[in-house]
Amino acid sequence: MSAIETRRQIVDVADKLFYEHGYEATSFADIAGEVGLSRGNFYYHFKSKDQILEAVIERRIAKTGAMLNAWQEDAGSPLDRIRRFIRLLIANSAKIMDYGCPVGTLCNELAKLDHVAKDDAARLFALYRDWLARQFAALGHETEAEALALHLLMRSQGVATLATAFRDGDFIRREVADMEAWLQAQCPVTSPPQF
Amino acid sequence: MSAIETRRQIVDVADKLFYEHGYEATSFADIAGEVGLSRGNFYYHFKSKDQILEAVIERRIAKTGAMLNAWQEDAGSPLDRIRRFIRLLIANSAKIMDYGCPVGTLCNELAKLDHVAKDDAARLFALYRDWLARQFAALGHETEAEALALHLLMRSQGVATLATAFRDGDFIRREVADMEAWLQAQCPVTSPPQF
Repeated sequence: MSAIETRRQIVDVADKLFYEHGYEATSFADIAGEVGLSRGNFYYHFKSKDQILEAVIERRIAKTGAMLNAWQEDAGSPLDRIRRFIRLLIANSAKIMDYGCPVGTLCNELAKLDHVAKDDAARLFALYRDWLARQFAALGHETEAEALALHLLMRSQGVATLATAFRDGDFIRREVADMEAWLQAQCPVTSPPQF
Repeated sequence: MSAIETRRQIVDVADKLFYEHGYEATSFADIAGEVGLSRGNFYYHFKSKDQILEAVIERRIAKTGAMLNAWQEDAGSPLDRIRRFIRLLIANSAKIMDYGCPVGTLCNELAKLDHVAKDDAARLFALYRDWLARQFAALGHETEAEALALHLLMRSQGVATLATAFRDGDFIRREVADMEAWLQAQCPVTSPPQF
């Protein structure tokens, strides 16, 4: 395995373990063990867990950015694009009930640790916020685009936290339907075509 | 200091440290150090961090239950009571921006640790849910009382998570105003008194 491939695999495994067990609860040894690397080989790539965290956040920012860009380029209205965001809650509901939202739970943990990377992690939220704001602006809500984006992001975070605590799939589906109804209510009323 | 008093102090300190730094990041030694106890004296009271966590959750359940009972007994309408819940976000905003919501972040962390106490921690949410549902039922929403309660709890969790990530007090105030407007919209329209 090439050095680049090994590094990529370490970051993949760390990303998964940080999400499933938390940053603090995941040790260097846990990551090395799951990748199947000797201590020496592992240290060649990363000298500290902080360095791995930095690489994990960079990876998540790159993946999220790529996903949002792809959604932007797909055919569909701004409304369809926002719906795709909302439906992440359905698509990921099993993992959310087990581990919460990967972004929200990481930001919460790093805030408590007062970790130097906490603002980097918050950039993940900023990516979603800015992308959502762009869609709301395209729907004609230029002035309050950011507030609407934060409102929707807030709801998705609240749903994730309660879904983890109560493990209630019906609750997720009900709140997703409510978010979609809220979204519909933000749409400008267009006149029916005139004949 | 009596044994009961020492135990109480250990649980107080652990409660604060678990909230401010997280359960996993807080060690036995951190707690003993802050209470100023020898290892021996400490072990007399608690044999493991899990035992302390159990006592912390019990303490939080007792305090939350007492607060909600007091709110129930205070003069005021169900609407006023729900507003008190919403305004916890304002009253605690500085701590929320630093450490998030004590309930949501604990539930999230214990879920990731797949900790035996995770369902006990979720009982804290259940306390709020049941109390809020009681208020919504009193407002005439018997059928959907629990769904409305969960919706409001969801919003407060979402606000807490984003407030921690962005440290944005304006966002909290805006969302609290929006929650109060939503609450008002749930109220039955009463006819004005007839003269």
